[in-house]
Amino acid sequence: MKLLFHYWTSPYCRKIRAILAEKNQDFSLKLVKPWVRDNSLIQLNPAGTTPVLIDNGNTIIGNIAITEYLEEAYPEKKLITGNKFERAEIRRLTDWFDSKFYNEVYKNLVIEKIDKRLSATGSPDSNALRAGWSNIDIHLSYIDYLMDRRRYLAGNELSLADLTAAAHLSTIDYLGDIDWDKHRQAKEWYARIKSRPCFREILCDYLTQIPPSKHYADLDF
Amino acid sequence: MKLLFHYWTSPYCRKIRAILAEKNQDFSLKLVKPWVRDNSLIQLNPAGTTPVLIDNGNTIIGNIAITEYLEEAYPEKKLITGNKFERAEIRRLTDWFDSKFYNEVYKNLVIEKIDKRLSATGSPDSNALRAGWSNIDIHLSYIDYLMDRRRYLAGNELSLADLTAAAHLSTIDYLGDIDWDKHRQAKEWYARIKSRPCFREILCDYLTQIPPSKHYADLDF
Repeated sequence: MKLLFHYWTSPYCRKIRAILAEKNQDFSLKLVKPWVRDNSLIQLNPAGTTPVLIDNGNTIIGNIAITEYLEEAYPEKKLITGNKFERAEIRRLTDWFDSKFYNEVYKNLVIEKIDKRLSATGSPDSNALRAGWSNIDIHLSYIDYLMDRRRYLAGNELSLADLTAAAHLSTIDYLGDIDWDKHRQAKEWYARIKSRPCFREILCDYLTQIPPSKHYADLDF
Repeated sequence: MKLLFHYWTSPYCRKIRAILAEKNQDFSLKLVKPWVRDNSLIQLNPAGTTPVLIDNGNTIIGNIAITEYLEEAYPEKKLITGNKFERAEIRRLTDWFDSKFYNEVYKNLVIEKIDKRLSATGSPDSNALRAGWSNIDIHLSYIDYLMDRRRYLAGNELSLADLTAAAHLSTIDYLGDIDWDKHRQAKEWYARIKSRPCFREILCDYLTQIPPSKHYADLDF
Protein backbone atom coordinates (compact mmCIF):
# COMPACT_ATOMS: atom_id res chain seq x y z
CA MET A 1 0.00 0.00 0.00
CA LYS A 2 1.15 3.52 -0.78
CA LEU A 3 0.80 6.72 1.22
CA LEU A 4 1.03 10.16 -0.38
CA PHE A 5 1.68 13.27 1.72
CA HIS A 6 -0.22 15.92 -0.21
CA TYR A 7 -1.97 19.27 -0.15
CA TRP A 8 -5.37 19.69 -1.88
CA THR A 9 -4.57 22.34 -4.42
CA SER A 10 -0.88 21.58 -5.02
CA PRO A 11 -0.72 20.87 -8.77
CA TYR A 12 2.30 18.63 -8.15
CA CYS A 13 0.36 16.48 -5.69
CA ARG A 14 -2.64 16.37 -8.03
CA LYS A 15 -0.34 15.21 -10.80
CA ILE A 16 1.06 12.36 -8.66
CA ARG A 17 -2.48 11.32 -7.64
CA ALA A 18 -3.47 11.22 -11.32
CA ILE A 19 -0.36 9.20 -12.28
CA LEU A 20 -0.95 6.68 -9.48
CA ALA A 21 -4.60 6.27 -10.49
CA GLU A 22 -3.73 6.03 -14.20
CA LYS A 23 -1.26 3.25 -13.30
CA ASN A 24 -3.96 1.47 -11.22
CA GLN A 25 -2.04 1.85 -7.97
CA ASP A 26 -4.02 2.07 -4.72
CA PHE A 27 -2.91 4.76 -2.30
CA SER A 28 -3.96 6.66 0.79
CA LEU A 29 -3.61 10.39 1.30
CA LYS A 30 -2.22 12.32 4.25
CA LEU A 31 -3.02 16.01 4.15
CA VAL A 32 -0.31 18.54 4.99
CA LYS A 33 -1.01 22.27 4.95
CA PRO A 34 2.04 24.17 3.63
CA TRP A 35 1.71 26.83 6.32
CA VAL A 36 1.60 24.37 9.26
CA ARG A 37 4.84 22.73 10.41
CA ASP A 38 4.44 18.94 10.19
CA ASN A 39 7.23 17.05 11.96
CA SER A 40 6.33 13.69 10.42
CA LEU A 41 6.82 15.26 6.97
CA ILE A 42 10.07 17.04 7.88
CA GLN A 43 11.53 13.78 9.17
CA LEU A 44 10.92 12.29 5.74
CA ASN A 45 11.78 15.35 3.64
CA PRO A 46 14.13 18.00 5.07
CA ALA A 47 12.70 20.48 2.55
CA GLY A 48 9.35 20.10 4.35
CA THR A 49 7.39 20.10 1.10
CA THR A 50 4.90 17.81 -0.62
CA PRO A 51 4.52 15.54 -2.53
CA VAL A 52 6.23 12.75 -0.61
CA LEU A 53 5.37 9.14 -1.43
CA ILE A 54 5.85 6.14 0.83
CA ASP A 55 5.89 3.01 -1.30
CA ASN A 56 6.29 -0.26 0.56
CA GLY A 57 8.43 1.39 3.23
CA ASN A 58 10.55 3.40 0.79
CA THR A 59 10.38 7.20 0.76
CA ILE A 60 10.41 9.03 -2.58
CA ILE A 61 10.52 12.81 -2.44
CA GLY A 62 9.38 15.56 -4.75
CA ASN A 63 7.46 16.03 -7.97
CA ILE A 64 10.20 15.06 -10.43
CA ALA A 65 11.73 12.18 -8.45
CA ILE A 66 8.30 10.62 -7.78
CA THR A 67 7.16 11.04 -11.39
CA GLU A 68 10.24 9.36 -12.86
CA TYR A 69 10.22 6.71 -10.10
CA LEU A 70 6.61 5.72 -10.85
CA GLU A 71 7.45 5.51 -14.55
CA GLU A 72 10.36 3.15 -13.77
CA ALA A 73 8.64 1.12 -11.04
CA TYR A 74 5.23 0.67 -12.73
CA PRO A 75 5.92 0.47 -16.46
CA GLU A 76 2.75 -1.48 -17.39
CA LYS A 77 1.03 1.80 -18.24
CA LYS A 78 3.70 4.17 -19.55
CA LEU A 79 3.21 7.95 -19.55
CA ILE A 80 6.59 8.98 -21.02
CA THR A 81 6.44 7.09 -24.31
CA GLY A 82 7.92 7.09 -27.80
CA ASN A 83 11.47 7.64 -28.99
CA LYS A 84 13.93 9.90 -27.19
CA PHE A 85 12.75 13.01 -29.03
CA GLU A 86 9.08 12.31 -28.31
CA ARG A 87 10.00 11.70 -24.68
CA ALA A 88 11.84 15.03 -24.61
CA GLU A 89 8.73 16.74 -25.98
CA ILE A 90 6.61 15.18 -23.19
CA ARG A 91 9.11 16.42 -20.59
CA ARG A 92 9.29 19.89 -22.21
CA LEU A 93 5.54 20.40 -21.88
CA THR A 94 5.46 18.87 -18.40
CA ASP A 95 8.11 21.38 -17.35
CA TRP A 96 6.18 24.16 -19.13
CA PHE A 97 3.28 23.68 -16.73
CA ASP A 98 5.37 22.81 -13.66
CA SER A 99 7.52 25.95 -14.03
CA LYS A 100 6.08 28.55 -16.40
CA PHE A 101 2.38 28.00 -15.72
CA TYR A 102 3.03 27.61 -11.98
CA ASN A 103 4.90 30.93 -11.77
CA GLU A 104 2.72 32.91 -14.16
CA VAL A 105 -0.74 31.62 -13.21
CA TYR A 106 -0.89 29.34 -10.14
CA LYS A 107 1.07 31.63 -7.82
CA ASN A 108 -0.96 34.67 -8.90
CA LEU A 109 -4.37 33.05 -8.54
CA VAL A 110 -4.42 29.99 -6.29
CA ILE A 111 -1.85 31.13 -3.73
CA GLU A 112 -3.41 34.60 -3.66
CA LYS A 113 -7.04 33.45 -3.42
CA ILE A 114 -6.87 30.13 -1.56
CA ASP A 115 -3.62 29.80 0.40
CA LYS A 116 -3.71 33.35 1.75
CA ARG A 117 -7.29 32.92 2.93
CA LEU A 118 -6.90 29.48 4.47
CA SER A 119 -3.66 30.46 6.22
CA ALA A 120 -5.14 33.83 7.27
CA THR A 121 -2.11 35.71 5.91
CA GLY A 122 -3.86 38.51 4.07
CA SER A 123 -6.11 39.27 1.15
CA PRO A 124 -5.31 38.74 -2.54
CA ASP A 125 -2.99 41.27 -4.19
CA SER A 126 -4.94 42.84 -7.04
CA ASN A 127 -1.86 43.22 -9.26
CA ALA A 128 -1.12 39.51 -8.89
CA LEU A 129 -4.73 38.60 -9.77
CA ARG A 130 -4.66 40.79 -12.89
CA ALA A 131 -1.37 39.22 -13.99
CA GLY A 132 -2.77 35.72 -13.39
CA TRP A 133 -5.96 36.38 -15.39
CA SER A 134 -3.97 37.84 -18.27
CA ASN A 135 -1.46 34.97 -18.27
CA ILE A 136 -4.04 32.16 -18.15
CA ASP A 137 -5.35 33.34 -21.50
CA ILE A 138 -1.91 33.01 -23.10
CA HIS A 139 -1.47 29.48 -21.78
CA LEU A 140 -4.93 28.39 -22.97
CA SER A 141 -4.20 29.84 -26.41
CA TYR A 142 -1.05 27.71 -26.51
CA ILE A 143 -3.14 24.62 -25.69
CA ASP A 144 -5.56 25.63 -28.51
CA TYR A 145 -2.56 25.87 -30.86
CA LEU A 146 -1.26 22.43 -29.86
CA MET A 147 -4.74 20.89 -30.13
CA ASP A 148 -5.06 22.12 -33.71
CA ARG A 149 -2.06 19.93 -34.50
CA ARG A 150 -2.18 16.93 -32.15
CA ARG A 151 -4.63 14.58 -30.44
CA TYR A 152 -2.97 15.07 -27.04
CA LEU A 153 -0.66 17.82 -25.78
CA ALA A 154 2.69 16.22 -26.59
CA GLY A 155 1.64 14.00 -29.49
CA ASN A 156 -1.03 11.51 -30.49
CA GLU A 157 -1.06 9.55 -27.23
CA LEU A 158 -2.01 10.46 -23.70
CA SER A 159 1.13 11.30 -21.71
CA LEU A 160 2.50 12.80 -18.55
CA ALA A 161 2.16 16.22 -20.21
CA ASP A 162 -1.66 15.89 -20.31
CA LEU A 163 -1.94 14.78 -16.68
CA THR A 164 0.41 17.57 -15.59
CA ALA A 165 -1.36 20.31 -17.53
CA ALA A 166 -4.79 19.11 -16.37
CA ALA A 167 -3.59 18.93 -12.75
CA HIS A 168 -2.51 22.57 -12.95
CA LEU A 169 -5.60 23.74 -14.84
CA SER A 170 -7.92 21.94 -12.40
CA THR A 171 -6.76 24.21 -9.58
CA ILE A 172 -7.57 27.34 -11.62
CA ASP A 173 -10.87 25.84 -12.79
CA TYR A 174 -11.76 25.20 -9.14
CA LEU A 175 -11.73 28.99 -8.74
CA GLY A 176 -13.85 29.47 -11.87
CA ASP A 177 -11.12 31.66 -13.37
CA ILE A 178 -11.06 30.08 -16.84
CA ASP A 179 -13.14 31.49 -19.68
CA TRP A 180 -13.62 28.21 -21.52
CA ASP A 181 -15.89 29.70 -24.20
CA LYS A 182 -12.88 31.59 -25.61
CA HIS A 183 -10.84 28.39 -25.92
CA ARG A 184 -12.86 25.67 -27.67
CA GLN A 185 -9.95 23.33 -28.47
CA ALA A 186 -8.49 23.59 -24.96
CA LYS A 187 -11.97 22.96 -23.52
CA GLU A 188 -12.48 19.81 -25.59
CA TRP A 189 -9.06 18.50 -24.59
CA TYR A 190 -9.65 19.27 -20.88
CA ALA A 191 -13.10 17.61 -21.01
CA ARG A 192 -11.42 14.44 -22.30
CA ILE A 193 -8.74 14.45 -19.57
CA LYS A 194 -11.06 15.29 -16.67
CA SER A 195 -13.40 12.46 -17.78
CA ARG A 196 -10.69 9.87 -17.19
CA PRO A 197 -11.15 7.72 -14.07
CA CYS A 198 -7.76 8.96 -12.80
CA PHE A 199 -9.26 12.43 -12.26
CA ARG A 200 -12.45 11.27 -10.53
CA GLU A 201 -11.15 11.61 -6.98
CA ILE A 202 -9.41 14.94 -7.63
CA LEU A 203 -12.72 16.42 -8.81
CA CYS A 204 -14.30 15.45 -5.48
CA ASP A 205 -11.92 17.73 -3.52
CA TYR A 206 -14.02 20.29 -1.71
CA LEU A 207 -12.79 23.10 0.55
CA THR A 208 -15.70 24.12 2.80
CA GLN A 209 -14.39 27.67 3.22
CA ILE A 210 -13.94 28.12 -0.53
CA PRO A 211 -16.36 25.93 -2.52
CA PRO A 212 -15.48 25.09 -6.15
CA SER A 213 -16.93 26.79 -9.22
CA LYS A 214 -20.27 25.35 -10.37
CA HIS A 215 -18.86 23.45 -13.35
CA TYR A 216 -15.66 22.26 -11.58
CA ALA A 217 -16.64 18.58 -11.36
CA ASP A 218 -19.02 18.67 -14.34
CA LEU A 219 -17.69 16.43 -17.10
CA ASP A 220 -19.91 18.12 -19.70
CA PHE A 221 -19.22 21.75 -18.78
CA MET B 1 27.97 18.66 -33.64
CA LYS B 2 25.82 20.17 -30.95
CA LEU B 3 24.79 23.77 -30.30
CA LEU B 4 23.62 24.97 -26.91
CA PHE B 5 21.68 28.24 -26.54
CA HIS B 6 22.81 29.43 -23.13
CA TYR B 7 23.28 32.34 -20.76
CA TRP B 8 26.52 32.68 -18.73
CA THR B 9 25.20 32.57 -15.22
CA SER B 10 22.12 30.39 -15.75
CA PRO B 11 22.69 27.41 -13.44
CA TYR B 12 20.57 25.25 -15.74
CA CYS B 13 22.79 26.07 -18.73
CA ARG B 14 25.94 25.50 -16.65
CA LYS B 15 24.55 22.12 -15.64
CA ILE B 16 23.93 21.10 -19.27
CA ARG B 17 27.44 22.27 -20.24
CA ALA B 18 28.89 20.13 -17.42
CA ILE B 19 26.81 17.08 -18.43
CA LEU B 20 27.84 17.39 -22.10
CA ALA B 21 31.51 17.70 -21.11
CA GLU B 22 31.28 14.83 -18.61
CA LYS B 23 29.80 12.69 -21.40
CA ASN B 24 32.64 13.74 -23.76
CA GLN B 25 30.30 15.46 -26.21
CA ASP B 26 31.63 18.39 -28.25
CA PHE B 27 29.38 21.41 -28.45
CA SER B 28 29.30 25.08 -29.39
CA LEU B 29 27.63 27.82 -27.40
CA LYS B 30 25.29 30.56 -28.54
CA LEU B 31 24.80 33.29 -25.97
CA VAL B 32 21.30 34.62 -25.31
CA LYS B 33 20.67 37.37 -22.77
CA PRO B 34 17.36 36.76 -20.95
CA TRP B 35 16.41 40.44 -21.20
CA VAL B 36 16.96 40.72 -24.98
CA ARG B 37 14.36 39.22 -27.33
CA ASP B 38 16.06 36.66 -29.58
CA ASN B 39 13.88 35.57 -32.49
CA SER B 40 16.07 32.59 -33.41
CA LEU B 41 15.51 31.25 -29.87
CA ILE B 42 11.77 31.94 -29.82
CA GLN B 43 11.35 30.07 -33.11
CA LEU B 44 12.88 27.02 -31.41
CA ASN B 45 11.31 27.46 -27.96
CA PRO B 46 8.04 29.38 -27.63
CA ALA B 47 8.86 29.94 -23.94
CA GLY B 48 11.87 31.99 -25.10
CA THR B 49 14.12 30.53 -22.41
CA THR B 50 17.45 28.71 -22.27
CA PRO B 51 18.83 26.05 -22.25
CA VAL B 52 17.93 24.82 -25.74
CA LEU B 53 20.06 22.12 -27.35
CA ILE B 54 20.34 21.40 -31.05
CA ASP B 55 21.65 17.87 -31.51
CA ASN B 56 22.15 16.72 -35.07
CA GLY B 57 19.23 18.84 -36.29
CA ASN B 58 16.90 17.90 -33.42
CA THR B 59 15.77 20.53 -30.92
CA ILE B 60 15.56 19.60 -27.23
CA ILE B 61 14.16 22.22 -24.89
CA GLY B 62 14.57 22.98 -21.22
CA ASN B 63 16.63 21.86 -18.26
CA ILE B 64 14.73 18.66 -17.42
CA ALA B 65 14.02 17.48 -20.97
CA ILE B 66 17.67 18.02 -22.02
CA THR B 67 19.06 16.35 -18.89
CA GLU B 68 16.95 13.21 -19.29
CA TYR B 69 17.52 13.21 -23.08
CA LEU B 70 21.31 13.27 -22.68
CA GLU B 71 21.07 10.44 -20.16
CA GLU B 72 19.08 8.36 -22.66
CA ALA B 73 21.01 9.32 -25.79
CA TYR B 74 24.56 9.08 -24.37
CA PRO B 75 24.47 6.29 -21.78
CA GLU B 76 28.20 5.44 -21.95
CA LYS B 77 28.80 7.72 -18.95
CA LYS B 78 25.69 7.56 -16.78
CA LEU B 79 24.85 10.29 -14.28
CA ILE B 80 21.55 8.90 -12.95
CA THR B 81 22.75 5.54 -11.69
CA GLY B 82 21.85 2.76 -9.28
CA ASN B 83 18.50 1.16 -8.48
CA LYS B 84 15.21 3.01 -8.68
CA PHE B 85 15.50 4.34 -5.13
CA GLU B 86 19.05 5.57 -5.65
CA ARG B 87 17.93 7.20 -8.89
CA ALA B 88 15.07 8.90 -7.01
CA GLU B 89 17.57 10.24 -4.47
CA ILE B 90 19.70 11.70 -7.30
CA ARG B 91 16.62 13.37 -8.78
CA ARG B 92 15.48 14.62 -5.34
CA LEU B 93 18.75 16.46 -4.76
CA THR B 94 18.89 17.70 -8.34
CA ASP B 95 15.42 19.18 -7.85
CA TRP B 96 16.51 20.59 -4.45
CA PHE B 97 19.06 22.80 -6.18
CA ASP B 98 17.01 23.49 -9.31
CA SER B 99 13.99 24.66 -7.29
CA LYS B 100 14.76 25.38 -3.64
CA PHE B 101 18.30 26.72 -4.01
CA TYR B 102 17.34 28.64 -7.15
CA ASN B 103 14.44 30.40 -5.40
CA GLU B 104 16.11 30.94 -2.05
CA VAL B 105 19.65 31.85 -3.13
CA TYR B 106 20.15 32.36 -6.88
CA LYS B 107 17.24 34.75 -7.39
CA ASN B 108 18.23 36.80 -4.35
CA LEU B 109 21.92 37.10 -5.20
CA VAL B 110 22.70 36.50 -8.89
CA ILE B 111 19.60 38.06 -10.39
CA GLU B 112 19.85 41.00 -7.99
CA LYS B 113 23.59 41.60 -8.44
CA ILE B 114 24.33 40.50 -12.02
CA ASP B 115 21.15 40.44 -14.14
CA LYS B 116 19.84 43.75 -12.82
CA ARG B 117 23.17 45.47 -13.51
CA LEU B 118 23.77 43.99 -16.96
CA SER B 119 20.19 44.69 -18.04
CA ALA B 120 20.27 48.16 -16.43
CA THR B 121 16.99 47.53 -14.61
CA GLY B 122 17.90 48.83 -11.18
CA SER B 123 20.13 48.21 -8.21
CA PRO B 124 20.06 45.17 -5.90
CA ASP B 125 17.26 45.03 -3.33
CA SER B 126 18.91 44.90 0.10
CA ASN B 127 16.20 42.67 1.59
CA ALA B 128 16.75 40.15 -1.19
CA LEU B 129 20.52 40.20 -0.64
CA ARG B 130 20.12 39.64 3.11
CA ALA B 131 17.73 36.73 2.47
CA GLY B 132 20.15 35.21 -0.06
CA TRP B 133 23.16 35.47 2.28
CA SER B 134 21.19 33.90 5.12
CA ASN B 135 19.84 31.10 2.93
CA ILE B 136 23.19 30.14 1.35
CA ASP B 137 24.44 29.22 4.80
CA ILE B 138 21.55 26.78 5.33
CA HIS B 139 22.18 25.09 1.99
CA LEU B 140 25.92 24.76 2.63
CA SER B 141 25.21 23.26 6.05
CA TYR B 142 23.01 20.68 4.33
CA ILE B 143 25.90 19.82 1.98
CA ASP B 144 28.18 19.50 5.07
CA TYR B 145 25.61 17.11 6.59
CA LEU B 146 25.45 14.98 3.44
CA MET B 147 29.25 14.94 3.11
CA ASP B 148 29.58 13.56 6.63
CA ARG B 149 27.64 10.53 5.41
CA ARG B 150 28.47 10.07 1.71
CA ARG B 151 31.32 10.41 -0.77
CA TYR B 152 29.18 12.39 -3.21
CA LEU B 153 25.93 14.29 -2.69
CA ALA B 154 23.45 11.54 -3.55
CA GLY B 155 25.57 8.50 -2.68
CA ASN B 156 29.02 7.07 -3.21
CA GLU B 157 29.29 7.87 -6.91
CA LEU B 158 29.40 11.10 -8.85
CA SER B 159 25.93 11.88 -10.19
CA LEU B 160 23.72 14.49 -11.77
CA ALA B 161 23.10 15.86 -8.26
CA ASP B 162 26.79 16.86 -7.90
CA LEU B 163 26.95 18.56 -11.31
CA THR B 164 23.66 20.37 -10.62
CA ALA B 165 24.63 21.58 -7.15
CA ALA B 166 28.08 22.68 -8.35
CA ALA B 167 26.55 24.49 -11.33
CA HIS B 168 24.32 26.48 -8.97
CA LEU B 169 27.06 27.10 -6.40
CA SER B 170 29.51 28.24 -9.07
CA THR B 171 27.28 31.22 -9.85
CA ILE B 172 27.26 32.31 -6.19
CA ASP B 173 30.98 31.66 -5.86
CA TYR B 174 31.54 33.89 -8.90
CA LEU B 175 30.17 36.71 -6.74
CA GLY B 176 32.39 35.71 -3.81
CA ASP B 177 29.31 35.31 -1.61
CA ILE B 178 30.25 31.97 -0.05
CA ASP B 179 32.08 31.80 3.28
CA TRP B 180 33.88 28.53 2.57
CA ASP B 181 35.83 28.59 5.85
CA LYS B 182 32.58 27.94 7.73
CA HIS B 183 31.81 24.86 5.62
CA ARG B 184 34.82 22.57 5.43
CA GLN B 185 33.03 19.47 4.14
CA ALA B 186 31.12 21.42 1.47
CA LYS B 187 34.38 23.11 0.45
CA GLU B 188 36.21 19.80 0.03
CA TRP B 189 33.34 18.39 -2.03
CA TYR B 190 33.16 21.52 -4.22
CA ALA B 191 36.94 21.48 -4.75
CA ARG B 192 36.63 17.92 -6.07
CA ILE B 193 33.78 18.78 -8.45
CA LYS B 194 35.28 22.02 -9.77
CA SER B 195 38.56 20.20 -10.46
CA ARG B 196 36.83 17.88 -12.95
CA PRO B 197 37.59 18.60 -16.62
CA CYS B 198 33.84 19.10 -17.22
CA PHE B 199 33.98 22.34 -15.17
CA ARG B 200 37.10 23.76 -16.80
CA GLU B 201 35.31 25.83 -19.41
CA ILE B 202 32.66 27.10 -16.99
CA LEU B 203 35.38 28.45 -14.71
CA CYS B 204 36.75 30.50 -17.63
CA ASP B 205 33.51 32.51 -17.93
CA TYR B 206 34.35 36.14 -17.36
CA LEU B 207 31.95 39.11 -17.38
CA THR B 208 34.01 42.24 -18.04
CA GLN B 209 31.54 44.49 -16.21
CA ILE B 210 31.46 42.20 -13.16
CA PRO B 211 34.72 40.25 -12.76
CA PRO B 212 34.66 37.02 -10.73
CA SER B 213 35.83 36.69 -7.11
CA LYS B 214 39.58 36.10 -6.74
CA HIS B 215 39.31 32.39 -5.94
CA TYR B 216 36.51 31.62 -8.47
CA ALA B 217 38.63 29.60 -10.89
CA ASP B 218 41.20 28.56 -8.28
CA LEU B 219 41.10 24.78 -7.84
CA ASP B 220 42.93 25.02 -4.52
CA PHE B 221 40.92 27.84 -2.94
